[in-house]
Amino acid sequence: MTIITGVDVLDVRFPTSLSMDGSDAMNKDGDYSAAYVILRTDDPELAGYGFTFTIGRGNDIVSLACDRRAQPLVGLDVADVVGDLGAVYRTLKSDSQMRWLGPEKGVEHLAMAAVMNAVWDLAARVAGRPLWRLLSEMSPEQLADVADLQYLSDVLTRDEAIGLLREMMPGRAQRIAELESSGYPCYTTSAGWLGYSDEKLRRLCQEALDAGYRHIKLKVGANLDDDIRRLRIAREVIGPDVALMIDANQVWDVPEAIEWVTALAEFRPLWIEEPTSPDDVLGHATIRRAVAPIGVATGEHGMNRVLFKQMFQAEALDFCQLDSARLASINEILAVYLMAKKFGVPVCPHAGGVGLCELVQHLSIFDYVAVSGTLENRVTEYVDHLHEHFVDPCIVRRGGYVLPTAPGYSAQMHEESLARYRYPDGGYWRDAGGSQASTPSERACSGGEKD
Amino acid sequence: MTIITGVDVLDVRFPTSLSMDGSDAMNKDGDYSAAYVILRTDDPELAGYGFTFTIGRGNDIVSLACDRRAQPLVGLDVADVVGDLGAVYRTLKSDSQMRWLGPEKGVEHLAMAAVMNAVWDLAARVAGRPLWRLLSEMSPEQLADVADLQYLSDVLTRDEAIGLLREMMPGRAQRIAELESSGYPCYTTSAGWLGYSDEKLRRLCQEALDAGYRHIKLKVGANLDDDIRRLRIAREVIGPDVALMIDANQVWDVPEAIEWVTALAEFRPLWIEEPTSPDDVLGHATIRRAVAPIGVATGEHGMNRVLFKQMFQAEALDFCQLDSARLASINEILAVYLMAKKFGVPVCPHAGGVGLCELVQHLSIFDYVAVSGTLENRVTEYVDHLHEHFVDPCIVRRGGYVLPTAPGYSAQMHEESLARYRYPDGGYWRDAGGSQASTPSERACSGGEKD
Repeated sequence: MTIITGVDVLDVRFPTSLSMDGSDAMNKDGDYSAAYVILRTDDPELAGYGFTFTIGRGNDIVSLACDRRAQPLVGLDVADVVGDLGAVYRTLKSDSQMRWLGPEKGVEHLAMAAVMNAVWDLAARVAGRPLWRLLSEMSPEQLADVADLQYLSDVLTRDEAIGLLREMMPGRAQRIAELESSGYPCYTTSAGWLGYSDEKLRRLCQEALDAGYRHIKLKVGANLDDDIRRLRIAREVIGPDVALMIDANQVWDVPEAIEWVTALAEFRPLWIEEPTSPDDVLGHATIRRAVAPIGVATGEHGMNRVLFKQMFQAEALDFCQLDSARLASINEILAVYLMAKKFGVPVCPHAGGVGLCELVQHLSIFDYVAVSGTLENRVTEYVDHLHEHFVDPCIVRRGGYVLPTAPGYSAQMHEESLARYRYPDGGYWRDAGGSQASTPSERACSGGEKD
Repeated sequence: MTIITGVDVLDVRFPTSLSMDGSDAMNKDGDYSAAYVILRTDDPELAGYGFTFTIGRGNDIVSLACDRRAQPLVGLDVADVVGDLGAVYRTLKSDSQMRWLGPEKGVEHLAMAAVMNAVWDLAARVAGRPLWRLLSEMSPEQLADVADLQYLSDVLTRDEAIGLLREMMPGRAQRIAELESSGYPCYTTSAGWLGYSDEKLRRLCQEALDAGYRHIKLKVGANLDDDIRRLRIAREVIGPDVALMIDANQVWDVPEAIEWVTALAEFRPLWIEEPTSPDDVLGHATIRRAVAPIGVATGEHGMNRVLFKQMFQAEALDFCQLDSARLASINEILAVYLMAKKFGVPVCPHAGGVGLCELVQHLSIFDYVAVSGTLENRVTEYVDHLHEHFVDPCIVRRGGYVLPTAPGYSAQMHEESLARYRYPDGGYWRDAGGSQASTPSERACSGGEKD
């Protein structure tokens, strides 16, 4: 019998604002960070690793929430936990005092994501399988048991969920074989951060083409003239046939979004991502009707399955970009995938940040194998940074994620990375004076006014 | 010149789960708590007091978030802060790293509420007025300047907001005089907690009648037979003419809500409160269409103004129950009042908890004086507990809130209360062994499984 003996939570921050990686119209100076959870067991060879993603300040608050959220796991038998991953999820979720702080949104939900990601990583390690394969070997009934269907029965019952999954049972093995050959298609945002110069944009677009990408995404929304110039450069480099996506990171009100996107229509974007508040289901639906055939994409700040339910009901989305570290891990993500299947909306998960690519590859592979069974209109985000901190980093070849083979959810970071970027006492931050004050993000902040 | 010199944040918890005060179908054992913020100045006679409300565990997380959120205020000139209450709000809100943790929801938003509540308390103290009067003396343009209208322009522009407020300028003084005579009408939830016996329910309903209440609310949703029995008792005591409201605290899916409420229709509830997930705009709209003429009420977990915007757009609500400690204080609350005015939905704020009655009386009075100008279908919650901890407690006479006269937002707690209920080092908790483990809430929790 193996017991969960303790939980370590580390506040890990990378000084990405130094290079403007990740800069966009809303988030100009993020220091990509993780609230990183380790579930220790009395087997020194076995632990579960998970995290949620933030962009700097407040990562300590999320880390505290992770610690509190994980405590009920301590003392449990690992076999019980991984033997009923629906029950452990429901146990954590049922704390009504913690629930009050959301419910199911914000810091508490990020913590739930981190902790349950670690639980799923643990389960996959115990099974000796990469998580996508563990999920792909579960029966429709087992998957329905772990999925969080609360508040969804007006659009998806348990029986319907099982039915959708049963339909896709034939061909699971064949689809795995296909992906093992081709990889899962991805696109790159690495070219298009707002803080990059025109020359860097041009060079990175060319490099993306050369690397085999057929989809490229640019940030927009700070200045319309700049956006027109940058999109023109991108189209010059990539030509008319490669897909170009644009991402406004929530800066517009609904009427402004419609006006701005219309002004960029000549560049034929495949989608406009996060045109307005991520909470605005009806606003997204209005924008979608107005800017068609340009698609509407959102979801990286989609707080929970109830929001996605309504996005589907209101026909507000062309592309669902759920986030692996904001939704409450597989239990909730699975519910969103099942609803997306029912409503015929492709899921193109959000990635980038730190470690999100490592996680979402498992989700996309599982979706193709066991839920959607199609790659049509599917392309998963890939951003080329911070992978060196992971023990089992994702690998992209010719524009496709290579299927992971190591057991787990690919969430484990190197000990050396943790020692260096742990905040505020890791080597990097100690050298930097013990705080984020060495990065542009904090220097901008220290004046009191931020933009 | 007076400077904000520091911020104290206290984690204050009251062991309400001992008496089952506050018990409902979702929250069986809350320990009513506040993350309590004091903005200190270099004038020993001047400070700002604010808080947000939680129900126990996690109040430490919210307290940490309050501390982080308030730091940019330290060192500012009080005159600058209270002189532009829109600017200080936007400054705090503009931290994009913190924003990532919501945005504008969950723990971070609760913290924003607590901090800005303290800022508004400070402003009212500097003005020497109770907050409702400070607000009632602001011009339409001043009110529009402080209101957070971001993401709302598809339903409410700044010009429209000013127009709505201008319409109500005539008669402000007369409406104040009316309320000074009659008080602002309220209803009581004190009778109807789920954990109370039938005998206690019967007695409390009678006491509420005797105290002058014309509206009484009961918790429902745990067991249909129990609900039928309890509603029958209540109707027996209060007769056919007193309004009876029911509150399910989010326990149902949409189809279940419709079925359950239909089964209680014979008791003619005025409204069903929180029938399902507070995030489910479309679900509330569906329920509302199905259970009419029973009204639908929600809002105590309404996370932000974007959610309320959609509730109004989708015609999902008959009664808007915004929360004074979950929305980001007056800046955001004002936006919701203005939208409610435009859509013709009465606002009946959520109260109870600890200190919420103290806050919401100011909101309701201001609404009548300067926004809605009517009391039709308006009734503000009142729960009869924990008021003794406040320096300027609300006063209810014959079913109406008496207008507060002391300067501020009525948010300040007694020093002795803080010393006793500060967690975990206050006198009460030290005597209780230094943790919530002495209350039923934590005993239920310590087994690992909670309900």
